[in-house]
Amino acid sequence: MYDILKNINSPKDVKKLDMAQLNILAQDIRDALFNRLTKIGGHFGPNFGIVEAEIAMHYVFDSPKDKFVFDVSHQSYPHKMLTGRKNGYIDDACFPEDSGYTNPEESEHDWFNVGHTSTSISLASGLAKARDLKGGTENVIALIGDGSLTGGEALEALDFVGSELKSNFIIIVNDNQQAIAECHGGICEHLNELRATNGKSENNIFKALGLDYIYEENGNNIEAMIKVLQSVKDIDHPIVVHINTQKGKGYKLAEENREAWHWCLPFDKATGKYTISLPAESYTSLTRDYILNKAKSDKDFVVITPAMPMTAGLTPDLREQLGSQYVDTGIAEEHAVAFASGIAKAGGKPLVVTNSTFIQRTYDQVSQDVCINGNPVTILLNFTSFDGLTDVTHLGIFTIAAFANIPNLIMLAPTSKEEYLNMLDWSIEQKDHPVMILMPGNAVTSRSADKNFDAINTFKIEKSGEKVAILALGDFYQRGEELATQIEAELGFKPTLINPRFASGLDKKMLEELKKNHQLVITLEDGILEGGFGQKVAAFYGATNMKVKTYGLQKEFYDRYNPQELLREVGMTTKQIIEDIKNLES
Amino acid sequence: MYDILKNINSPKDVKKLDMAQLNILAQDIRDALFNRLTKIGGHFGPNFGIVEAEIAMHYVFDSPKDKFVFDVSHQSYPHKMLTGRKNGYIDDACFPEDSGYTNPEESEHDWFNVGHTSTSISLASGLAKARDLKGGTENVIALIGDGSLTGGEALEALDFVGSELKSNFIIIVNDNQQAIAECHGGICEHLNELRATNGKSENNIFKALGLDYIYEENGNNIEAMIKVLQSVKDIDHPIVVHINTQKGKGYKLAEENREAWHWCLPFDKATGKYTISLPAESYTSLTRDYILNKAKSDKDFVVITPAMPMTAGLTPDLREQLGSQYVDTGIAEEHAVAFASGIAKAGGKPLVVTNSTFIQRTYDQVSQDVCINGNPVTILLNFTSFDGLTDVTHLGIFTIAAFANIPNLIMLAPTSKEEYLNMLDWSIEQKDHPVMILMPGNAVTSRSADKNFDAINTFKIEKSGEKVAILALGDFYQRGEELATQIEAELGFKPTLINPRFASGLDKKMLEELKKNHQLVITLEDGILEGGFGQKVAAFYGATNMKVKTYGLQKEFYDRYNPQELLREVGMTTKQIIEDIKNLES
Repeated sequence: MYDILKNINSPKDVKKLDMAQLNILAQDIRDALFNRLTKIGGHFGPNFGIVEAEIAMHYVFDSPKDKFVFDVSHQSYPHKMLTGRKNGYIDDACFPEDSGYTNPEESEHDWFNVGHTSTSISLASGLAKARDLKGGTENVIALIGDGSLTGGEALEALDFVGSELKSNFIIIVNDNQQAIAECHGGICEHLNELRATNGKSENNIFKALGLDYIYEENGNNIEAMIKVLQSVKDIDHPIVVHINTQKGKGYKLAEENREAWHWCLPFDKATGKYTISLPAESYTSLTRDYILNKAKSDKDFVVITPAMPMTAGLTPDLREQLGSQYVDTGIAEEHAVAFASGIAKAGGKPLVVTNSTFIQRTYDQVSQDVCINGNPVTILLNFTSFDGLTDVTHLGIFTIAAFANIPNLIMLAPTSKEEYLNMLDWSIEQKDHPVMILMPGNAVTSRSADKNFDAINTFKIEKSGEKVAILALGDFYQRGEELATQIEAELGFKPTLINPRFASGLDKKMLEELKKNHQLVITLEDGILEGGFGQKVAAFYGATNMKVKTYGLQKEFYDRYNPQELLREVGMTTKQIIEDIKNLES
Repeated sequence: MYDILKNINSPKDVKKLDMAQLNILAQDIRDALFNRLTKIGGHFGPNFGIVEAEIAMHYVFDSPKDKFVFDVSHQSYPHKMLTGRKNGYIDDACFPEDSGYTNPEESEHDWFNVGHTSTSISLASGLAKARDLKGGTENVIALIGDGSLTGGEALEALDFVGSELKSNFIIIVNDNQQAIAECHGGICEHLNELRATNGKSENNIFKALGLDYIYEENGNNIEAMIKVLQSVKDIDHPIVVHINTQKGKGYKLAEENREAWHWCLPFDKATGKYTISLPAESYTSLTRDYILNKAKSDKDFVVITPAMPMTAGLTPDLREQLGSQYVDTGIAEEHAVAFASGIAKAGGKPLVVTNSTFIQRTYDQVSQDVCINGNPVTILLNFTSFDGLTDVTHLGIFTIAAFANIPNLIMLAPTSKEEYLNMLDWSIEQKDHPVMILMPGNAVTSRSADKNFDAINTFKIEKSGEKVAILALGDFYQRGEELATQIEAELGFKPTLINPRFASGLDKKMLEELKKNHQLVITLEDGILEGGFGQKVAAFYGATNMKVKTYGLQKEFYDRYNPQELLREVGMTTKQIIEDIKNLES
C-alpha cells in the first residue's frame, strides 16, 4: 500500500521517479484520497480529476521556488500529498493536520489560505508582479477550474494579465466540464468549442484577451501533461494551458455523477452510500419544499442561485421541474444579486439562495443595485451559524455585521420552522423591502409564529418577566429559552424572553418600556459582536441606567474549532452568563 | 436657443422630427450640457460623446415600454433631456431637480438609481427575465462603456446572458476608447482589434461568449445609429451593438484631453479653465507627493488603482514617471485588492488607492484574499467623509461599518497632516497587518504625531481632563476639539479629549482607566452609527455605570444633502451635544 507515495517527502522525490513509478504514484494518491474521504469526507471529484496534472506540475516545476496558486483549494489534495503532507491522507491519526484547503501555515508550498472561488489568477498575478519588481526569475502558475472562471474576480484578472503583465505567467485551466453542479455561462460553452476543435478554434476568448494559449486533451495522462508543462516552463509572457480532465476519475460512481461527488460525506467505497445519515427534515428540506410549491402556484416567482442549488436542496430533477423558474448564474454572485434586482424591479419575485460566506462577494451589489433602489429581492442564506461550517474561509459568523448595517435591508432571523416559512413567504410577497433571511443553523424546532412582518423592527415578547430581559436572536433563541429557565431556577425570578426577529434594527418602543421593570438586558447572537445586533442595543441604552451584556463571538478568523468549546471560550454558556449576572457592577 | 429641445417633452416628440431637426436637437443638447456643466460641473466627456446614440435610441425604441438601463449614469444626461427633464439643463433654477444619475424617482424612463460602474447588463438582464416570465414583448437595452466592461459584475453578466438568456436583449457597447483615465486590460485592446477590422475580426470575445454581434463605426452619426438600432429592434436573442464614439465630442479641449474632461468643475467655456479654485495643499496632494517620493526611494513599493489615479493626484505625466511602480487595473476593484495581496505575500509593498464607495466592491477580497492571509496590503481611501460626495451612490459614510468589523484589518483614522503621512508610511513599511487608511475629508491641519503604530488599538489622550471623555475619531477630531473648548466654557470643567487613531478596535486599558474620574464618554465619528466605532465603545461599557453617547450619522441612504443641515438633523452640533450632556439621565 502506498509503495511510492510513502517515500514522497517533498517534490524533489517526485522528480526522481520514472514514468511507470509516476503512474503508480497516481494510483497511490487515489488510494490515499479514498482513505481520507471515505472516513471523514471532503472534496472528491476535483481531487480525483487533477491527480496526473499535479504530479506533472511538481515533476516539471520547482516548488516552492516556482509558485503554485490553487483556486478555491478543492483540487489541492494531491499537491498536499506531494509536498510533505501525505500523512494527512494515509494516516488516520493525522487527518486533522490537514485543513482541506491550501494553507501557508501548513507548508511553504502553499501561498494563500483559499476557500472562495475565482481568486487564483488575481493572487498569482500579484506574486508575478512582485517577482518582476524584485528581478526574480521563478515561474508563477495559477490553477483554476472551468466552473470558477465565471466569477468576476477571475474574469477581471484574466482581462488584466492578458494585456498588463508582460512576463512569465502560466494559467492552467482545469476543464472538467463541471462546476459543483453543471456549468453555466458563455465561457463554459466556449470551452466546449475549444475542446471540440482540439484548441484550434479561430475564436478563442483567451487569445481575444491578449493571452497566449495551448490545449492539452489528455489532462489525465502524466506523460502528456509533463510534455505540455515543459513546453511552457520559463515562458516570458502569460499563457493559458487549457487541459481536459475527468472529474472524479478513478471512481466509476463519481465519473458518472459528477455533481453528487463534487464533495462527499464519509461513505462506503463499495456502494457509494454515505455512512452517516442526515435528518429527514432540515431547514434545507423545508426550503426545497417551499420553493417547489411556490413555483407551481406563482409564475412570477423565480429562484436564482450562483452555482449552489444544493444549499436549497435542489437536485437536478427538481431543477428540471422548476424550468424557467430556476436560474443558475454560474459562480457569479454579483450578477445573481443585480439580476434579481432587475427581476424585482419589473414585478418578478426573485429568491436568491446561497451560503452566507459566498454572499460576501455582493456587499456592493446588495447596497447599490438592490438597497438604494429598494427593490424587493429576497436573499436566503444557508450556513449562517457558528456551528455550521468551521473552516476559516467558510464562516457564517460575519453575516450580520457585514450586511445588517446596510440601509433599507431588512435582515430576518427566524427561530422556528413556522417562523422561517412565514418569513420566507412574507418576504417574497411584499413589495417594499430588500430582505435577507438567515436560515437557522440548528435542528428544526416548531412553535407558532406570526405571518405578517410589515411592522418592521417589532420584536416579540415570548415570555414576560422582570429584572432581566433576554434578547435571543435567530437560532440562538433556544439558548435564550434555556437561559430563562436557568435564571428562574437559580436566581429565583422570571426574566423576560424576547425574540427580536429583525437583526437589522431595534424595536425602540419595546426597549424603552423594558426600562420600567428591568435592570439588565442580555443579547445573544449567532455571530461576531462587533458591528452586530447586541452593540446596537448597548448603544441604545448607553446614556441610561439600563445595563447591557452582549454575548456572541469575537471578531476573529476562527478555524476548525469545536463549537461547544468556542462557546465556553467566549463565555456564553448558560452557566457563565448566570455567573456574569451575579457579578454585575451595582 | 434650444429651438428644438425646448419642445421635447417626451420621447414621442423625438420621433416626430426629421433628420435635419434631429441634428439640430443634437446641437441643442450640447448647448444645454454646456449650460449646466459650465455652471455647476458634472460628467462631461461621456455625455458629449453619446448625444447622437441616445437621440437614435429614443427615436427607434419606445421608452418606457422598451427599457433602457444606463451603466454608471455618466452618459445619461441626453437621455434625461429627452425624457421630460430638459429643464435641469436649460433652466438654471431647475439644476437641483436633476440628480446627475438615472433615478426612478425622477422619471418612469429611469429604471435604477445607479452610480457605480459595470451594473447595466446585469440589472437589465433581470428586467428581461421578468419580461419573459410575464410573457412581455418589450425590448430591453443595456448601455455600457468600454471602460466599464472590465468590472467583474459586467463580465459575469456578459458571460451569463450569452448562454442563458434566450430572448430579446440588446447590449450597446459605447466604445469611446477611454475609461476615466486611459483604458486598461485585454478587452480594451480587443476592442481596438474589432474597430480596426470594422467588426469583422474572426476572434470576437462577444461571439465567443455566445452573443450575436454587430459593429457601427459612426456612433456619432444619428442616421447611422438609427439604422443599426432599427436592425436589432425586436430581435429574439441577445446581441451586442458595438458603437464607436468620440468622448467629449463637440468641445475641442475635451476631445483632445479625454481624461481631464471626463468630469469637470464649473468652467469657462472659452478657455476651459475652472472658475473655482482648489486649495494648493490637500490630502490628495500630500498623497501624490508621498507616492512619488516613496517610489523613488523604494523599488518594492507599487501603487495600484482600479482606474482612479486622480484620487491620489496621479496625473498622466506622474504615472509615466512611476513606470512599473504604478498599476492601473482598469475598473476591477476585486482584482486590484487580490493582486495587492499577492504582491504583499511575495515581499512587495502595495498601496491600493481609490474612493471609499468603490472599495465596497471588495468586501470579500479584503476579508478572504487579504485579511485571512494577513498580508500587509495598505488600502488608502479618499472621500470617506459625510461632506465629501453627497450623491446617494457615492457616500463615504458606510466605510467604517462595512470594513472595520473584518478581523485582522487595522483601520486607521488620521487627524492631521503629520499623522496621516506617518500612518501611511508606517503601514507601507510594516509586515504584520492589512491596513485601511481613511483619508481625512476636511481641510489639511497640522499637529505633531507619533510615527510608530505597532501598538495596535492604542488611543492617544490629547488633552487630559475629567467627568467627560470625548473620543473624536479621524476627521471629526477637530469637532472634538471644539466640543472640549465649549464644554470648558459653558459647563465649567475640562473634559478629556482622545484621538482614537484606530477605528477598528478599542484601547480597553484606557477605557477602563477612564472610569476613575469620568462619568460620560462621548464618541464622534464620520460615518453611520450602526456597526461603527461608537457602538463598540457603548458595548464595552454596557454593564458598567459609565454613560456613553454615540454621535454619528443614521443608517440611511442620504442623497444630495446640505452637510451642515445634516449634522443638525442628527443632533451632533456642538450646541446640541452640550444640551444632551446637561439633560443626561442621572
